[in-house]
Amino acid sequence: MFRNDTFLRALRRQPTPYTPVWLMRQAGRYLPEYNRTRARAGSFMGLAQHPELACEVTLQPLERYPLDAAILFSDILTIPDAMGLGLSFAEGEGPRFERTTADEGAIGALDVPDMAKLRYVFDAVATIKRALAGRVPLIGFSGSPFTLACYMIEGRGSDDDFAKVRRMACARPDLLARLVDVNARAVTAYLNEQIQAGADAVMIFDTWGGLLPAAAYRRFSLATMTAVLRGLAPGPDGARVPTIVFTKGGGSWLPEIAACGADGVGLDWTVDLAAARATVGDRVALQGNLDPLVLTTDPATVAREAEAVVRAAGPAPGHIFNLGHGIVPKTPPENVAALVETVHRVSRR
Amino acid sequence: MFRNDTFLRALRRQPTPYTPVWLMRQAGRYLPEYNRTRARAGSFMGLAQHPELACEVTLQPLERYPLDAAILFSDILTIPDAMGLGLSFAEGEGPRFERTTADEGAIGALDVPDMAKLRYVFDAVATIKRALAGRVPLIGFSGSPFTLACYMIEGRGSDDDFAKVRRMACARPDLLARLVDVNARAVTAYLNEQIQAGADAVMIFDTWGGLLPAAAYRRFSLATMTAVLRGLAPGPDGARVPTIVFTKGGGSWLPEIAACGADGVGLDWTVDLAAARATVGDRVALQGNLDPLVLTTDPATVAREAEAVVRAAGPAPGHIFNLGHGIVPKTPPENVAALVETVHRVSRR
Repeated sequence: MFRNDTFLRALRRQPTPYTPVWLMRQAGRYLPEYNRTRARAGSFMGLAQHPELACEVTLQPLERYPLDAAILFSDILTIPDAMGLGLSFAEGEGPRFERTTADEGAIGALDVPDMAKLRYVFDAVATIKRALAGRVPLIGFSGSPFTLACYMIEGRGSDDDFAKVRRMACARPDLLARLVDVNARAVTAYLNEQIQAGADAVMIFDTWGGLLPAAAYRRFSLATMTAVLRGLAPGPDGARVPTIVFTKGGGSWLPEIAACGADGVGLDWTVDLAAARATVGDRVALQGNLDPLVLTTDPATVAREAEAVVRAAGPAPGHIFNLGHGIVPKTPPENVAALVETVHRVSRR
Repeated sequence: MFRNDTFLRALRRQPTPYTPVWLMRQAGRYLPEYNRTRARAGSFMGLAQHPELACEVTLQPLERYPLDAAILFSDILTIPDAMGLGLSFAEGEGPRFERTTADEGAIGALDVPDMAKLRYVFDAVATIKRALAGRVPLIGFSGSPFTLACYMIEGRGSDDDFAKVRRMACARPDLLARLVDVNARAVTAYLNEQIQAGADAVMIFDTWGGLLPAAAYRRFSLATMTAVLRGLAPGPDGARVPTIVFTKGGGSWLPEIAACGADGVGLDWTVDLAAARATVGDRVALQGNLDPLVLTTDPATVAREAEAVVRAAGPAPGHIFNLGHGIVPKTPPENVAALVETVHRVSRR
């Protein structure tokens, strides 16, 4: 079915001839060809909302490097945009919403958006899937219900660790619960549509769950991701689609995260990968976790540090090499080449 | 020796009639009397460098609340300032150094500063100690060798998780090692002078160690804190002075941190306190870990969340109640009153 299925095999903890590798934000600003396509599109959302252009940038890193998976080019915040919050990206800044969903009225009025408003995403999945033609699997994704809530409440990124959200978590847990529960239903529907359109695996990005106290993480982030996973339908061929959850900053909660029902758990760059494997045994695949800053150094340093990650993962199946967070824009493309080559070479059994 | 020694007893895992409480940044901008004294001093460093004023603000929270420890009013960055880097605090902003220590030349030339340049700190310790007159113990402190290095390399706080420092950690580990090793010798001398001046316990604040990959954390932060702890001399009475280390974001490394030689380990607000206690047993005291944002809500929420932290800590001795990070400026002072009252009441055995 795939000419290269190492990613899916590793996610199922099956043996692979080498460790598969893909990179968060592998299609992105460090690639000159990406910047050219983005300039043609006019804006980030212009790029994400045009299936042909989204397909073009999704495939760009696969033309340069022998990566073992493709990931849909999109943003984690498409769902709140479809809810009517008005997403935009100012040049050189992060996402910004025109409207927030932070009070009783706005949260009470919130509902799962019509998936027709997100058709551009599902069309992109189908377009990419056709273009890949079985070369490697395609990963679909969404932001986690809690991470969506962070941006919906604050309207943008935060320089105080989402203080307003953490305050709501203790002062108005009922409100935050309603918000993340609506989001969980929306994320479930959204990922199911991506699966129907051809996604071979889906990943939930919980960028900000790691900022919560442990009990609040369980209720507002982990429980809602678990609900999403339980609500996923089989793919068009009737087979279950494997899943990955990634909570940045969630290292100290790994035993609980590993029990949430996902096939794989993403690890940020601070986690000791060998200790993580010892903790979870063979219950889940682990994905990660090179510090993305390593990719801003030089090929020799990249090779040394990448090999250390492969060694830390150990010989058992179930490791998907990745960064511990997204590629940073000032990454020299030749360092990515050194990374992929090293991972494949040193992991070959 | 102390009218209230619950803090020191808890730090030594001895029984106490109730859980002692103090709060990181308990002397600070949320208190109107602090803001008045700071206005008189003209600047943050003017306040820190005048022992009488530093003593005045150190005692202010103890006048309002029945706190179980005082902590020296100072800054974590006094050592690099004494190294000649030129520390200042712009209004409403974080610390800023005039000069950085980021290249081979600057790091090679670096040495432990003359402790005479930090006499204002030791004078403040002696002044506060006299003013306390045995009421509660006085905690001395320093930034960790690695956290000092973060500011010395970047010259200020960071909006990219100290990318430059993390890059140096993998590309030039030799340089970063020299920097943190010089810092470790400086921190050792600095804390020993605080101990000689009367500090009853010392704490090392590792604000940024949690941003490192695990192996780099071990080498650049944990190993250097361990070296500092090993270099501490007994107090003026010949007795060992108890110690606390606090790595924000270090929750997943707790077993290693608990073995570093400190009597107590500080926990940030994301750590599951009950799980942490199960992990470390009775090897160390645990200090923490209420989310400081809880203090920006209302007294009823504060009381509920504080009680949950006391319950999570369990009945065994060795818990020092604190926040998981410093008090935020917009904290209403009456919420701090509710917090201290609740901790003392619900923990009373």
